[in-house]
Amino acid sequence: MSVLVVGSVALDDVETPFGKFHEILGGSASYFSLAANFFTDVKVVAVIGDDFPNNFLEIFETKNIGLTGLRRVSGKTFRWHGKYGYDLGDPETIGTYLNVFETFDPVIPEDYRESSYVFLANIDPELQLNVLKQVINPKLVAMDTMNYWIVNKPKELKEVLARVNVLIINDSETRALANEPKIMKAARAILDMGPGVLIVKRGEYGALLFSEEGIFWAPSYPLEEVIDPTGAGDSFAGAFMGYIAGSGISHSINFKRGVVYGSVIASFTVEDFSVNRLISLKREEIDIRFDAFLNLSNLD
Amino acid sequence: MSVLVVGSVALDDVETPFGKFHEILGGSASYFSLAANFFTDVKVVAVIGDDFPNNFLEIFETKNIGLTGLRRVSGKTFRWHGKYGYDLGDPETIGTYLNVFETFDPVIPEDYRESSYVFLANIDPELQLNVLKQVINPKLVAMDTMNYWIVNKPKELKEVLARVNVLIINDSETRALANEPKIMKAARAILDMGPGVLIVKRGEYGALLFSEEGIFWAPSYPLEEVIDPTGAGDSFAGAFMGYIAGSGISHSINFKRGVVYGSVIASFTVEDFSVNRLISLKREEIDIRFDAFLNLSNLD
Repeated sequence: MSVLVVGSVALDDVETPFGKFHEILGGSASYFSLAANFFTDVKVVAVIGDDFPNNFLEIFETKNIGLTGLRRVSGKTFRWHGKYGYDLGDPETIGTYLNVFETFDPVIPEDYRESSYVFLANIDPELQLNVLKQVINPKLVAMDTMNYWIVNKPKELKEVLARVNVLIINDSETRALANEPKIMKAARAILDMGPGVLIVKRGEYGALLFSEEGIFWAPSYPLEEVIDPTGAGDSFAGAFMGYIAGSGISHSINFKRGVVYGSVIASFTVEDFSVNRLISLKREEIDIRFDAFLNLSNLD
Repeated sequence: MSVLVVGSVALDDVETPFGKFHEILGGSASYFSLAANFFTDVKVVAVIGDDFPNNFLEIFETKNIGLTGLRRVSGKTFRWHGKYGYDLGDPETIGTYLNVFETFDPVIPEDYRESSYVFLANIDPELQLNVLKQVINPKLVAMDTMNYWIVNKPKELKEVLARVNVLIINDSETRALANEPKIMKAARAILDMGPGVLIVKRGEYGALLFSEEGIFWAPSYPLEEVIDPTGAGDSFAGAFMGYIAGSGISHSINFKRGVVYGSVIASFTVEDFSVNRLISLKREEIDIRFDAFLNLSNLD
Protein backbone atom coordinates (compact mmCIF):
# COMPACT_ATOMS: atom_id res chain seq x y z
CA MET A 1 0.00 0.00 0.00
CA SER A 2 1.21 3.51 -0.71
CA VAL A 3 1.69 6.40 1.71
CA LEU A 4 0.37 9.91 1.29
CA VAL A 5 2.38 12.71 2.93
CA VAL A 6 1.23 16.29 3.34
CA GLY A 7 4.00 18.66 4.36
CA SER A 8 6.64 21.07 3.17
CA VAL A 9 9.14 21.05 0.35
CA ALA A 10 11.69 23.72 1.12
CA LEU A 11 14.97 25.35 0.28
CA ASP A 12 17.22 25.32 3.35
CA ASP A 13 20.26 27.26 4.41
CA VAL A 14 22.03 25.12 6.97
CA GLU A 15 25.09 26.06 9.02
CA THR A 16 27.03 23.60 11.13
CA PRO A 17 30.51 23.97 12.61
CA PHE A 18 31.62 21.69 9.78
CA GLY A 19 30.08 23.40 6.78
CA LYS A 20 27.59 25.89 5.36
CA PHE A 21 25.04 24.90 2.74
CA HIS A 22 22.94 27.36 0.74
CA GLU A 23 19.52 26.65 -0.81
CA ILE A 24 19.70 22.91 -0.43
CA LEU A 25 16.65 20.68 -0.75
CA GLY A 26 14.77 20.46 2.55
CA GLY A 27 11.28 20.27 4.01
CA SER A 28 9.41 17.57 5.89
CA ALA A 29 7.77 16.04 2.80
CA SER A 30 11.13 15.80 1.01
CA TYR A 31 12.84 13.83 3.77
CA PHE A 32 9.71 11.82 4.52
CA SER A 33 9.05 10.75 0.94
CA LEU A 34 12.63 9.80 0.11
CA ALA A 35 12.78 7.71 3.31
CA ALA A 36 9.38 6.02 2.90
CA ASN A 37 10.21 5.27 -0.72
CA PHE A 38 12.59 2.49 0.33
CA PHE A 39 9.61 0.51 1.58
CA THR A 40 6.57 1.50 -0.46
CA ASP A 41 5.14 3.95 -3.02
CA VAL A 42 4.82 7.54 -1.85
CA LYS A 43 2.62 10.44 -2.94
CA VAL A 44 3.41 14.02 -1.96
CA VAL A 45 1.03 16.93 -1.37
CA ALA A 46 2.96 20.17 -0.96
CA VAL A 47 3.59 23.53 -2.59
CA ILE A 48 6.65 25.06 -4.24
CA GLY A 49 7.35 28.45 -5.82
CA ASP A 50 8.41 29.25 -9.36
CA ASP A 51 12.01 29.49 -8.14
CA PHE A 52 12.14 25.80 -7.20
CA PRO A 53 15.00 24.18 -9.15
CA ASN A 54 14.04 21.53 -11.67
CA ASN A 55 16.97 19.33 -10.70
CA PHE A 56 15.43 19.02 -7.23
CA LEU A 57 12.15 17.91 -8.83
CA GLU A 58 14.10 15.30 -10.76
CA ILE A 59 15.28 13.77 -7.49
CA PHE A 60 11.67 12.82 -6.70
CA GLU A 61 10.86 11.87 -10.29
CA THR A 62 13.85 9.53 -10.53
CA LYS A 63 12.55 7.73 -7.43
CA ASN A 64 9.02 7.54 -8.89
CA ILE A 65 7.57 9.56 -6.03
CA GLY A 66 4.02 10.73 -6.87
CA LEU A 67 3.99 14.47 -7.54
CA THR A 68 0.40 15.02 -8.75
CA GLY A 69 -0.23 16.82 -5.46
CA LEU A 70 2.88 18.99 -5.63
CA ARG A 71 1.59 22.37 -6.76
CA ARG A 72 3.90 24.96 -8.21
CA VAL A 73 2.55 28.47 -7.65
CA SER A 74 3.79 31.96 -8.34
CA GLY A 75 6.17 33.25 -5.68
CA LYS A 76 9.14 32.03 -3.72
CA THR A 77 9.52 28.56 -2.23
CA PHE A 78 9.37 28.12 1.58
CA ARG A 79 12.81 28.75 3.05
CA TRP A 80 14.35 27.78 6.38
CA HIS A 81 17.70 28.98 7.71
CA GLY A 82 19.09 27.07 10.67
CA LYS A 83 22.35 26.89 12.56
CA TYR A 84 23.74 24.02 14.64
CA GLY A 85 26.28 24.26 17.45
CA TYR A 86 29.10 21.82 18.15
CA ASP A 87 26.82 19.38 19.92
CA LEU A 88 24.68 19.16 16.74
CA GLY A 89 21.61 19.23 18.99
CA ASP A 90 18.56 21.44 18.46
CA PRO A 91 19.34 24.06 15.81
CA GLU A 92 18.90 27.79 16.21
CA THR A 93 16.42 29.04 13.63
CA ILE A 94 17.97 32.08 11.97
CA GLY A 95 14.94 32.63 9.78
CA THR A 96 11.75 31.02 8.51
CA TYR A 97 10.36 32.48 5.28
CA LEU A 98 6.98 30.92 4.58
CA ASN A 99 6.61 32.52 1.13
CA VAL A 100 4.20 30.35 -0.94
CA PHE A 101 3.67 28.14 2.12
CA GLU A 102 1.81 31.02 3.80
CA THR A 103 -1.27 30.41 1.67
CA PHE A 104 -0.81 26.64 1.41
CA ASP A 105 -4.19 24.96 1.48
CA PRO A 106 -3.59 21.30 0.79
CA VAL A 107 -5.87 19.89 -1.88
CA ILE A 108 -5.70 16.12 -2.06
CA PRO A 109 -5.90 14.97 -5.69
CA GLU A 110 -8.95 12.79 -6.44
CA ASP A 111 -6.93 9.62 -6.90
CA TYR A 112 -4.99 10.17 -3.63
CA ARG A 113 -8.12 10.41 -1.46
CA GLU A 114 -8.42 6.72 -0.81
CA SER A 115 -4.84 6.43 0.44
CA SER A 116 -4.70 3.84 3.23
CA TYR A 117 -1.69 5.37 4.95
CA VAL A 118 -1.53 9.10 5.58
CA PHE A 119 1.15 11.22 7.24
CA LEU A 120 0.39 14.75 8.35
CA ALA A 121 3.80 16.39 8.65
CA ASN A 122 4.38 19.34 10.98
CA ILE A 123 1.97 21.96 9.56
CA ASP A 124 -0.83 24.11 11.01
CA PRO A 125 -3.33 21.79 12.76
CA GLU A 126 -6.13 23.52 10.83
CA LEU A 127 -4.55 22.33 7.59
CA GLN A 128 -4.08 18.88 9.10
CA LEU A 129 -7.84 18.83 9.82
CA ASN A 130 -8.56 19.91 6.24
CA VAL A 131 -6.57 16.96 4.96
CA LEU A 132 -8.44 14.56 7.23
CA LYS A 133 -11.73 15.80 5.78
CA GLN A 134 -10.53 14.92 2.28
CA VAL A 135 -9.16 11.41 2.80
CA ILE A 136 -11.57 8.48 2.73
CA ASN A 137 -11.33 5.66 5.29
CA PRO A 138 -7.57 5.60 5.80
CA LYS A 139 -6.23 2.54 7.65
CA LEU A 140 -3.64 4.51 9.56
CA VAL A 141 -3.06 8.22 10.02
CA ALA A 142 0.11 9.46 11.68
CA MET A 143 1.08 13.03 12.45
CA ASP A 144 3.87 15.28 13.64
CA THR A 145 3.59 18.66 15.34
CA MET A 146 5.82 21.18 17.12
CA ASN A 147 5.92 23.44 20.17
CA TYR A 148 4.63 26.42 18.15
CA TRP A 149 1.29 24.67 17.49
CA ILE A 150 1.13 23.23 21.00
CA VAL A 151 1.30 26.78 22.36
CA ASN A 152 -0.63 28.69 19.71
CA LYS A 153 -3.30 26.32 18.44
CA PRO A 154 -3.96 23.88 21.31
CA LYS A 155 -7.68 23.52 20.54
CA GLU A 156 -7.21 22.70 16.86
CA LEU A 157 -4.29 20.42 17.70
CA LYS A 158 -6.42 18.43 20.16
CA GLU A 159 -9.04 18.02 17.45
CA VAL A 160 -6.48 16.47 15.13
CA LEU A 161 -5.04 14.31 17.89
CA ALA A 162 -8.49 12.87 18.57
CA ARG A 163 -8.64 11.69 14.95
CA VAL A 164 -5.19 10.17 14.30
CA ASN A 165 -3.73 6.77 15.13
CA VAL A 166 -0.07 7.62 15.63
CA LEU A 167 1.70 10.72 16.95
CA ILE A 168 5.42 11.02 16.20
CA ILE A 169 7.13 13.81 18.16
CA ASN A 170 10.30 14.45 20.14
CA ASP A 171 11.07 14.47 23.86
CA SER A 172 10.44 18.14 24.54
CA GLU A 173 7.26 18.21 22.45
CA THR A 174 6.00 15.24 24.45
CA ARG A 175 6.57 17.05 27.74
CA ALA A 176 5.10 20.30 26.38
CA LEU A 177 2.00 18.70 24.88
CA ALA A 178 1.16 16.91 28.13
CA ASN A 179 2.46 19.78 30.31
CA GLU A 180 4.21 17.10 32.35
CA PRO A 181 7.99 16.72 32.79
CA LYS A 182 7.93 12.95 33.35
CA ILE A 183 7.97 11.09 30.08
CA MET A 184 5.91 8.10 31.27
CA LYS A 185 3.12 10.24 32.66
CA ALA A 186 3.29 12.55 29.64
CA ALA A 187 3.00 9.56 27.31
CA ARG A 188 -0.06 8.23 29.08
CA ALA A 189 -1.72 11.64 29.04
CA ILE A 190 -1.11 11.88 25.29
CA LEU A 191 -2.51 8.41 24.60
CA ASP A 192 -5.64 9.63 26.41
CA MET A 193 -5.91 12.47 23.87
CA GLY A 194 -6.65 10.07 21.05
CA PRO A 195 -3.71 8.42 19.30
CA GLY A 196 -3.38 4.72 20.05
CA VAL A 197 0.36 4.92 19.47
CA LEU A 198 2.88 7.53 20.55
CA ILE A 199 6.43 7.51 19.23
CA VAL A 200 8.90 9.73 21.06
CA LYS A 201 12.04 10.54 19.08
CA ARG A 202 15.05 11.20 21.30
CA GLY A 203 17.80 11.91 18.79
CA GLU A 204 21.04 10.18 19.70
CA TYR A 205 19.24 8.46 22.58
CA GLY A 206 16.89 6.43 20.39
CA ALA A 207 13.10 6.30 20.31
CA LEU A 208 10.28 5.07 22.52
CA LEU A 209 7.08 3.47 21.26
CA PHE A 210 4.10 3.71 23.61
CA SER A 211 0.82 1.89 23.06
CA GLU A 212 -1.72 0.01 25.12
CA GLU A 213 0.48 -3.07 24.60
CA GLY A 214 3.30 -1.44 26.53
CA ILE A 215 6.60 0.25 25.76
CA PHE A 216 9.26 -0.55 23.18
CA TRP A 217 12.67 1.10 23.25
CA ALA A 218 14.71 1.38 20.07
CA PRO A 219 18.34 2.39 20.42
CA SER A 220 19.95 5.01 18.23
CA TYR A 221 22.99 4.03 16.21
CA PRO A 222 26.13 5.51 17.79
CA LEU A 223 27.54 7.32 14.78
CA GLU A 224 31.15 8.14 14.09
CA GLU A 225 30.32 11.31 12.23
CA VAL A 226 27.23 13.49 12.05
CA ILE A 227 27.32 16.07 9.26
CA ASP A 228 23.83 17.62 9.34
CA PRO A 229 21.00 16.50 11.66
CA THR A 230 18.33 18.27 9.57
CA GLY A 231 15.59 15.91 8.45
CA ALA A 232 16.40 13.11 10.89
CA GLY A 233 12.91 13.28 12.42
CA ASP A 234 11.08 13.47 9.10
CA SER A 235 13.03 10.61 7.59
CA PHE A 236 12.42 8.61 10.79
CA ALA A 237 8.68 9.14 10.25
CA GLY A 238 9.03 8.31 6.56
CA ALA A 239 10.75 5.01 7.17
CA PHE A 240 8.29 4.12 9.94
CA MET A 241 5.22 4.85 7.82
CA GLY A 242 6.75 3.32 4.70
CA TYR A 243 7.54 0.12 6.54
CA ILE A 244 4.06 -0.06 8.12
CA ALA A 245 2.39 0.62 4.77
CA GLY A 246 4.43 -2.15 3.23
CA SER A 247 3.89 -4.68 6.00
CA GLY A 248 0.44 -3.87 7.42
CA ILE A 249 -0.97 -2.92 10.80
CA SER A 250 -2.30 -6.27 11.93
CA HIS A 251 0.80 -7.32 13.88
CA SER A 252 2.19 -5.12 16.64
CA ILE A 253 5.72 -6.31 15.83
CA ASN A 254 5.45 -4.29 12.61
CA PHE A 255 5.19 -1.12 14.68
CA LYS A 256 8.32 -2.06 16.61
CA ARG A 257 10.20 -2.94 13.44
CA GLY A 258 8.96 0.31 11.92
CA VAL A 259 10.51 2.25 14.79
CA VAL A 260 13.82 0.45 14.31
CA TYR A 261 13.70 1.19 10.56
CA GLY A 262 12.95 4.80 11.46
CA SER A 263 16.07 4.95 13.62
CA VAL A 264 18.11 3.24 10.90
CA ILE A 265 17.09 5.68 8.17
CA ALA A 266 17.55 8.70 10.47
CA SER A 267 21.05 7.49 11.24
CA PHE A 268 21.86 7.56 7.52
CA THR A 269 20.18 10.93 6.88
CA VAL A 270 22.50 12.76 9.27
CA GLU A 271 25.63 11.36 7.62
CA ASP A 272 25.42 13.98 4.85
CA PHE A 273 23.70 17.32 4.34
CA SER A 274 20.24 17.73 2.78
CA VAL A 275 18.77 14.51 1.34
CA ASN A 276 22.10 13.46 -0.18
CA ARG A 277 22.56 10.31 1.87
CA LEU A 278 18.96 9.23 1.20
CA ILE A 279 19.67 9.54 -2.54
CA SER A 280 22.82 7.43 -2.48
CA LEU A 281 21.51 4.92 0.08
CA LYS A 282 21.03 1.30 -1.05
CA ARG A 283 18.48 -1.11 0.39
CA GLU A 284 21.27 -3.56 1.33
CA GLU A 285 22.87 -0.89 3.53
CA ILE A 286 19.56 -0.43 5.33
CA ASP A 287 19.27 -4.15 6.04
CA ILE A 288 22.84 -4.39 7.30
CA ARG A 289 22.33 -1.52 9.72
CA PHE A 290 18.94 -2.89 10.78
CA ASP A 291 20.73 -6.06 11.91
CA ALA A 292 23.40 -3.96 13.63
CA PHE A 293 20.62 -2.15 15.52
CA LEU A 294 19.17 -5.40 16.75
CA ASN A 295 22.63 -6.55 17.81
CA LEU A 296 23.16 -3.34 19.73
CA SER A 297 20.58 -4.30 22.33
CA ASN A 298 20.86 -8.05 21.99
CA LEU A 299 22.01 -9.84 25.12
CA ASP A 300 23.03 -13.10 23.46
CA MET B 1 33.71 -14.03 44.68
CA SER B 2 33.45 -10.91 46.81
CA VAL B 3 33.86 -7.28 45.76
CA LEU B 4 36.03 -4.69 47.46
CA VAL B 5 34.92 -1.05 47.17
CA VAL B 6 36.99 1.96 48.15
CA GLY B 7 34.99 5.17 48.28
CA SER B 8 33.00 7.52 50.48
CA VAL B 9 30.43 7.04 53.20
CA ALA B 10 28.70 10.36 53.67
CA LEU B 11 25.90 12.32 55.25
CA ASP B 12 23.91 14.10 52.54
CA ASP B 13 21.56 17.03 52.50
CA VAL B 14 19.44 16.60 49.39
CA GLU B 15 16.86 19.05 48.03
CA THR B 16 14.47 18.22 45.24
CA PRO B 17 11.28 20.03 44.21
CA PHE B 18 9.46 17.19 45.96
CA GLY B 19 11.22 17.12 49.29
CA LYS B 20 14.19 18.08 51.46
CA PHE B 21 16.24 15.53 53.32
CA HIS B 22 18.79 16.34 56.04
CA GLU B 23 21.81 14.22 56.99
CA ILE B 24 20.67 11.12 55.17
CA LEU B 25 23.02 8.24 54.43
CA GLY B 26 24.96 8.85 51.22
CA GLY B 27 28.37 8.36 49.63
CA SER B 28 29.56 6.22 46.75
CA ALA B 29 30.57 3.24 48.88
CA SER B 30 27.17 3.20 50.60
CA TYR B 31 25.15 2.99 47.39
CA PHE B 32 27.69 0.70 45.74
CA SER B 33 27.86 -1.83 48.56
CA LEU B 34 24.11 -2.06 49.14
CA ALA B 35 23.59 -2.61 45.40
CA ALA B 36 26.41 -5.14 44.92
CA ASN B 37 25.21 -6.99 47.99
CA PHE B 38 22.25 -8.43 46.04
CA PHE B 39 24.69 -10.45 43.95
CA THR B 40 27.76 -11.17 46.06
CA ASP B 41 29.63 -10.40 49.30
CA VAL B 42 30.95 -6.87 49.64
CA LYS B 43 33.76 -5.30 51.66
CA VAL B 44 33.98 -1.56 52.22
CA VAL B 45 37.05 0.61 52.70
CA ALA B 46 36.07 4.13 53.71
CA VAL B 47 36.25 6.60 56.55
CA ILE B 48 33.61 8.11 58.85
CA GLY B 49 33.73 10.64 61.67
CA ASP B 50 32.71 10.24 65.28
CA ASP B 51 29.37 11.88 64.44
CA PHE B 52 28.32 9.02 62.13
CA PRO B 53 25.03 7.56 63.44
CA ASN B 54 25.11 3.98 64.65
CA ASN B 55 21.76 3.21 63.04
CA PHE B 56 23.38 3.89 59.65
CA LEU B 57 26.16 1.44 60.54
CA GLU B 58 23.50 -1.13 61.36
CA ILE B 59 22.15 -0.88 57.80
CA PHE B 60 25.42 -2.33 56.53
CA GLU B 61 25.74 -4.79 59.38
CA THR B 62 22.24 -6.17 58.84
CA LYS B 63 23.20 -6.87 55.23
CA ASN B 64 26.48 -8.54 56.29
CA ILE B 65 28.57 -6.01 54.40
CA GLY B 66 32.23 -6.24 55.45
CA LEU B 67 33.20 -3.23 57.54
CA THR B 68 36.74 -4.15 58.67
CA GLY B 69 38.01 -1.42 56.34
CA LEU B 70 35.56 1.23 57.51
CA ARG B 71 37.63 3.42 59.82
CA ARG B 72 35.99 5.72 62.31
CA VAL B 73 38.25 8.67 63.11
CA SER B 74 37.93 11.80 65.18
CA GLY B 75 36.11 14.62 63.38
CA LYS B 76 33.05 15.09 61.23
CA THR B 77 31.85 12.74 58.52
CA PHE B 78 32.10 13.81 54.86
CA ARG B 79 29.03 15.84 53.93
CA TRP B 80 27.49 16.71 50.56
CA HIS B 81 24.66 19.15 50.02
CA GLY B 82 23.00 19.01 46.61
CA LYS B 83 19.92 20.46 44.99
CA TYR B 84 17.95 19.11 42.01
CA GLY B 85 15.73 21.09 39.65
CA TYR B 86 12.41 19.95 38.19
CA ASP B 87 14.07 17.88 35.48
CA LEU B 88 15.90 15.90 38.21
CA GLY B 89 19.01 16.03 36.02
CA ASP B 90 22.48 16.98 37.21
CA PRO B 91 22.27 18.46 40.71
CA GLU B 92 23.70 21.77 41.79
CA THR B 93 26.27 21.23 44.53
CA ILE B 94 25.46 23.63 47.34
CA GLY B 95 28.40 22.47 49.40
CA THR B 96 30.99 19.71 49.76
CA TYR B 97 32.52 19.37 53.22
CA LEU B 98 35.32 16.84 53.09
CA ASN B 99 35.90 16.78 56.87
CA VAL B 100 37.52 13.43 57.78
CA PHE B 101 37.65 12.55 54.08
CA GLU B 102 40.28 15.26 53.57
CA THR B 103 42.97 13.08 55.12
CA PHE B 104 41.52 9.78 53.92
CA ASP B 105 44.35 7.45 53.01
CA PRO B 106 42.78 4.09 52.22
CA VAL B 107 44.46 1.22 53.99
CA ILE B 108 43.29 -2.14 52.67
CA PRO B 109 43.00 -4.64 55.54
CA GLU B 110 45.30 -7.63 55.20
CA ASP B 111 42.49 -10.10 54.47
CA TYR B 112 40.96 -7.80 51.80
CA ARG B 113 44.16 -7.56 49.73
CA GLU B 114 43.55 -10.64 47.65
CA SER B 115 40.09 -9.44 46.58
CA SER B 116 39.45 -10.59 43.02
CA TYR B 117 37.04 -7.78 42.21
CA VAL B 118 37.90 -4.21 43.11
CA PHE B 119 35.96 -1.00 42.57
CA LEU B 120 37.65 2.35 42.91
CA ALA B 121 34.83 4.82 43.45
CA ASN B 122 35.18 8.47 42.53
CA ILE B 123 38.09 9.60 44.72
CA ASP B 124 41.43 11.33 44.10
CA PRO B 125 43.33 9.33 41.44
CA GLU B 126 46.38 9.36 43.75
CA LEU B 127 44.35 7.46 46.33
CA GLN B 128 43.11 5.11 43.62
CA LEU B 129 46.75 4.39 42.74
CA ASN B 130 47.52 3.74 46.40
CA VAL B 131 44.76 1.15 46.51
CA LEU B 132 46.06 -0.55 43.38
CA LYS B 133 49.47 -0.90 45.05
CA GLN B 134 47.90 -2.72 47.97
CA VAL B 135 45.69 -5.26 46.18
CA ILE B 136 47.24 -8.50 44.96
CA ASN B 137 46.41 -9.90 41.51
CA PRO B 138 42.80 -8.79 41.20
CA LYS B 139 40.84 -10.39 38.37
CA LEU B 140 38.96 -7.23 37.52
CA VAL B 141 39.40 -3.64 38.61
CA ALA B 142 36.77 -1.05 37.74
CA MET B 143 36.79 2.64 38.50
CA ASP B 144 34.76 5.82 38.44
CA THR B 145 36.00 9.39 38.22
CA MET B 146 34.62 12.91 37.69
CA ASN B 147 35.28 16.12 35.78
CA TYR B 148 37.19 17.60 38.74
CA TRP B 149 39.92 14.94 38.49
CA ILE B 150 39.88 15.01 34.68
CA VAL B 151 40.71 18.71 34.83
CA ASN B 152 42.92 18.85 37.93
CA LYS B 153 44.81 15.56 38.01
CA PRO B 154 44.96 14.38 34.41
CA LYS B 155 48.41 12.80 34.76
CA GLU B 156 47.54 10.75 37.84
CA LEU B 157 44.17 9.82 36.33
CA LYS B 158 45.87 8.51 33.16
CA GLU B 159 48.13 6.37 35.36
CA VAL B 160 45.12 4.77 37.02
CA LEU B 161 43.32 4.32 33.69
CA ALA B 162 46.30 2.42 32.33
CA ARG B 163 45.96 -0.07 35.17
CA VAL B 164 42.22 -0.78 35.34
CA ASN B 165 39.95 -3.05 33.32
CA VAL B 166 36.67 -1.15 33.38
CA LEU B 167 35.84 2.55 33.49
CA ILE B 168 32.29 3.49 34.49
CA ILE B 169 31.47 7.17 33.90
CA ASN B 170 28.70 9.34 32.50
CA ASP B 171 28.18 11.02 29.13
CA SER B 172 29.78 14.36 29.93
CA GLU B 173 32.75 12.76 31.70
CA THR B 174 33.30 10.61 28.62
CA ARG B 175 33.42 13.65 26.35
CA ALA B 176 35.59 15.60 28.79
CA LEU B 177 38.09 12.79 29.39
CA ALA B 178 38.61 12.27 25.64
CA ASN B 179 38.23 15.99 24.87
CA GLU B 180 35.96 14.90 22.02
CA PRO B 181 32.23 15.72 21.66
CA LYS B 182 31.32 12.61 19.66
CA ILE B 183 30.63 9.71 21.93
CA MET B 184 31.89 6.99 19.55
CA LYS B 185 35.21 8.72 18.96
CA ALA B 186 35.49 9.57 22.65
CA ALA B 187 34.87 5.95 23.60
CA ARG B 188 37.57 4.69 21.28
CA ALA B 189 40.06 7.23 22.59
CA ILE B 190 39.32 6.13 26.16
CA LEU B 191 39.72 2.44 25.35
CA ASP B 192 43.16 3.41 24.01
CA MET B 193 44.03 4.84 27.44
CA GLY B 194 43.95 1.42 29.03
CA PRO B 195 40.59 0.05 30.14
CA GLY B 196 39.34 -2.83 28.01
CA VAL B 197 35.77 -1.92 28.82
CA LEU B 198 34.08 1.47 29.00
CA ILE B 199 30.57 1.85 30.39
CA VAL B 200 28.87 5.18 29.71
CA LYS B 201 25.94 5.92 32.01
CA ARG B 202 23.34 8.17 30.40
CA GLY B 203 20.72 8.51 33.11
CA GLU B 204 17.19 8.17 31.76
CA TYR B 205 18.66 7.32 28.36
CA GLY B 206 20.27 4.07 29.45
CA ALA B 207 23.88 2.95 29.27
CA LEU B 208 26.41 2.00 26.61
CA LEU B 209 29.00 -0.75 26.96
CA PHE B 210 32.07 -0.37 24.75
CA SER B 211 34.72 -3.04 24.36
CA GLU B 212 36.80 -4.54 21.60
CA GLU B 213 33.86 -6.87 20.95
CA GLY B 214 31.66 -3.94 19.98
CA ILE B 215 28.89 -1.92 21.53
CA PHE B 216 25.97 -2.95 23.72
CA TRP B 217 23.12 -0.59 24.48
CA ALA B 218 21.04 -1.07 27.62
CA PRO B 219 17.83 0.89 27.90
CA SER B 220 16.83 2.75 31.02
CA TYR B 221 13.53 1.89 32.64
CA PRO B 222 10.97 4.63 31.96
CA LEU B 223 9.93 5.42 35.50
CA GLU B 224 6.61 6.80 36.66
CA GLU B 225 8.15 8.64 39.57
CA VAL B 226 11.68 9.71 40.43
CA ILE B 227 12.11 10.91 43.99
CA ASP B 228 15.88 11.39 44.35
CA PRO B 229 18.45 10.60 41.63
CA THR B 230 21.36 10.63 44.10
CA GLY B 231 23.33 7.39 44.06
CA ALA B 232 21.94 6.09 40.76
CA GLY B 233 25.44 5.94 39.25
CA ASP B 234 27.06 4.32 42.26
CA SER B 235 24.35 1.71 42.63
CA PHE B 236 24.61 1.04 38.87
CA ALA B 237 28.32 0.33 39.38
CA GLY B 238 27.56 -1.77 42.45
CA ALA B 239 25.07 -3.99 40.67
CA PHE B 240 27.38 -4.32 37.66
CA MET B 241 30.41 -5.32 39.74
CA GLY B 242 28.35 -7.50 42.06
CA TYR B 243 26.87 -9.38 39.15
CA ILE B 244 30.26 -9.82 37.45
CA ALA B 245 31.86 -10.98 40.69
CA GLY B 246 29.08 -13.51 41.12
CA SER B 247 29.11 -14.79 37.54
CA GLY B 248 32.73 -14.41 36.40
CA ILE B 249 34.53 -12.58 33.61
CA SER B 250 35.00 -15.44 31.17
CA HIS B 251 31.83 -14.78 29.13
CA SER B 252 31.23 -11.40 27.54
CA ILE B 253 27.49 -11.85 28.00
CA ASN B 254 28.08 -11.41 31.73
CA PHE B 255 29.27 -7.87 31.08
CA LYS B 256 26.12 -7.12 29.09
CA ARG B 257 23.90 -8.67 31.74
CA GLY B 258 25.86 -6.73 34.38
CA VAL B 259 25.03 -3.48 32.59
CA VAL B 260 21.34 -4.40 32.49
CA TYR B 261 21.43 -5.25 36.22
CA GLY B 262 23.15 -1.90 36.76
CA SER B 263 20.29 -0.10 35.02
CA VAL B 264 17.74 -2.16 36.94
CA ILE B 265 19.18 -1.34 40.35
CA ALA B 266 19.67 2.34 39.46
CA SER B 267 16.01 2.49 38.47
CA PHE B 268 15.06 1.29 41.94
CA THR B 269 17.50 3.57 43.77
CA VAL B 270 15.88 6.75 42.42
CA GLU B 271 12.42 5.67 43.54
CA ASP B 272 13.14 6.82 47.10
CA PHE B 273 15.64 9.10 48.81
CA SER B 274 18.98 7.96 50.24
CA VAL B 275 19.49 4.17 50.19
CA ASN B 276 15.92 3.51 51.35
CA ARG B 277 14.77 1.66 48.26
CA LEU B 278 17.92 -0.49 48.27
CA ILE B 279 17.12 -1.50 51.83
CA SER B 280 13.53 -2.53 51.12
CA LEU B 281 14.28 -4.08 47.72
CA LYS B 282 13.75 -7.83 47.27
CA ARG B 283 15.66 -10.06 44.87
CA GLU B 284 12.39 -11.09 43.18
CA GLU B 285 11.66 -7.47 42.32
CA ILE B 286 15.05 -7.21 40.66
CA ASP B 287 14.41 -10.29 38.55
CA ILE B 288 10.98 -9.07 37.47
CA ARG B 289 12.35 -5.71 36.37
CA PHE B 290 15.33 -7.39 34.67
CA ASP B 291 12.85 -9.28 32.48
CA ALA B 292 10.91 -6.06 31.88
CA PHE B 293 14.16 -4.43 30.73
CA LEU B 294 14.80 -7.20 28.23
CA ASN B 295 11.22 -6.91 26.98
CA LEU B 296 11.64 -3.18 26.54
CA SER B 297 14.04 -3.66 23.64
CA ASN B 298 12.78 -7.03 22.45
CA LEU B 299 11.37 -7.08 18.94
CA ASP B 300 9.48 -10.34 19.24
